[in-house]
Amino acid sequence: MRASGRVYLVGAGPGAPDLLTLRALRLLEQADVVLTDALVHPDTLALATRATLVMVGKRAGQPSPKQAEINRLLVAAAHEHRCVVRLKGGDPMVFGRAQEEIDALIAADIDFEVVPGITAALAASAELRQPLTQRARSRHFVMVTPKQADDSPPNDWARPIVDADAAAVYMGGADVAHIAQVLLDAGRSADTPVVLAHKVSLPDADYRRATLAEVASGTVAAPVPVLILIGETFRVPS
Amino acid sequence: MRASGRVYLVGAGPGAPDLLTLRALRLLEQADVVLTDALVHPDTLALATRATLVMVGKRAGQPSPKQAEINRLLVAAAHEHRCVVRLKGGDPMVFGRAQEEIDALIAADIDFEVVPGITAALAASAELRQPLTQRARSRHFVMVTPKQADDSPPNDWARPIVDADAAAVYMGGADVAHIAQVLLDAGRSADTPVVLAHKVSLPDADYRRATLAEVASGTVAAPVPVLILIGETFRVPS
Repeated sequence: MRASGRVYLVGAGPGAPDLLTLRALRLLEQADVVLTDALVHPDTLALATRATLVMVGKRAGQPSPKQAEINRLLVAAAHEHRCVVRLKGGDPMVFGRAQEEIDALIAADIDFEVVPGITAALAASAELRQPLTQRARSRHFVMVTPKQADDSPPNDWARPIVDADAAAVYMGGADVAHIAQVLLDAGRSADTPVVLAHKVSLPDADYRRATLAEVASGTVAAPVPVLILIGETFRVPS
Repeated sequence: MRASGRVYLVGAGPGAPDLLTLRALRLLEQADVVLTDALVHPDTLALATRATLVMVGKRAGQPSPKQAEINRLLVAAAHEHRCVVRLKGGDPMVFGRAQEEIDALIAADIDFEVVPGITAALAASAELRQPLTQRARSRHFVMVTPKQADDSPPNDWARPIVDADAAAVYMGGADVAHIAQVLLDAGRSADTPVVLAHKVSLPDADYRRATLAEVASGTVAAPVPVLILIGETFRVPS
């Protein structure tokens, strides 16, 4: 039997509850069930007044559900409820593992829609008041993750950053010194400005500035999780 | 005298009024004056119930104000009003000429803040239901414009795209065939999937699929303005 429910893969934005979109707000208000990443702000979850909340994301100190289990819960919810929201931090289509869930929904013949969200790099740029692009000076901005398949060439992720005016590295984990060293080795200049961004858009947001060489040296403490912003556009005028 | 007003550079999102953020909504409701790009949706402008609206963007068939004139209006508004919103299509920090306005505000010692918006590539990806990134398969996504300074090397903009798994070309203008040819010449595969996206997120949104070689051949009609999405992540399973 075809599920009667509709699934919405919704971006919750970078953290601040008021960086949610109006469409996401309306869907949360209508939702019967919300399957949410654990890092979504409690005030955002509180908007889903009618819904049963199911935490499916990673929580500190606890094992996180496997993707297959999340897919199974999503399909089951669509068979039981009319309006199912799958809430993801940031934007669902940028490092959000959306493809796995989309494949599961298509395989189960379930109706679905994707609602975009503000991804962390956009919010960090806004808070820093330093644009990701600048006319005629910074014409490309690349979003990248060093996480890769076991069979891909080592450091294959770094190539587009070397040629790009500016970049954001998502999910770099604790290894920021190594990431910076790979970029140095690939030819990026030692004095390239870097911003280590943590808890973007929240009251306790933390932005640490350094050069690429300083980060590579391992002397700059990086909070985890960290978004790494790289490029001349992040230089502070002296 | 220091201006008493505060300026907000606000992203209006890709077009659909409900893809505005809650923060942008609140600021529009409070605004005394809104300086807006012409492409912002009328329903979004209607949210600024208290404000004087000033159109500063490009309109078909009419000359658009020079950037210096927009900067002058912005600084003048901050001297006359408490809450000044500068509304820009998409995200202010992605191909939004924010730096010019930020420089003018800093030079005039005016208090300001930036509010992010959903940029067109995120909204197009959501509507296509095809993620910009995929785990272990599409690890970089680059946003680029071919617009460049007179003294930069020709086609310098294309380099990061050749190495990136996926890309969005903003403000490509009418010259999509040339853009595709540059990417082919730089070594991108002829059968790379391309989506030509127009009026993203609006009811009359238009998405045209082709290969990079087909676009380069000039046989694919491209609506203007167009967002060009490129990469295997946009392939439709056969």
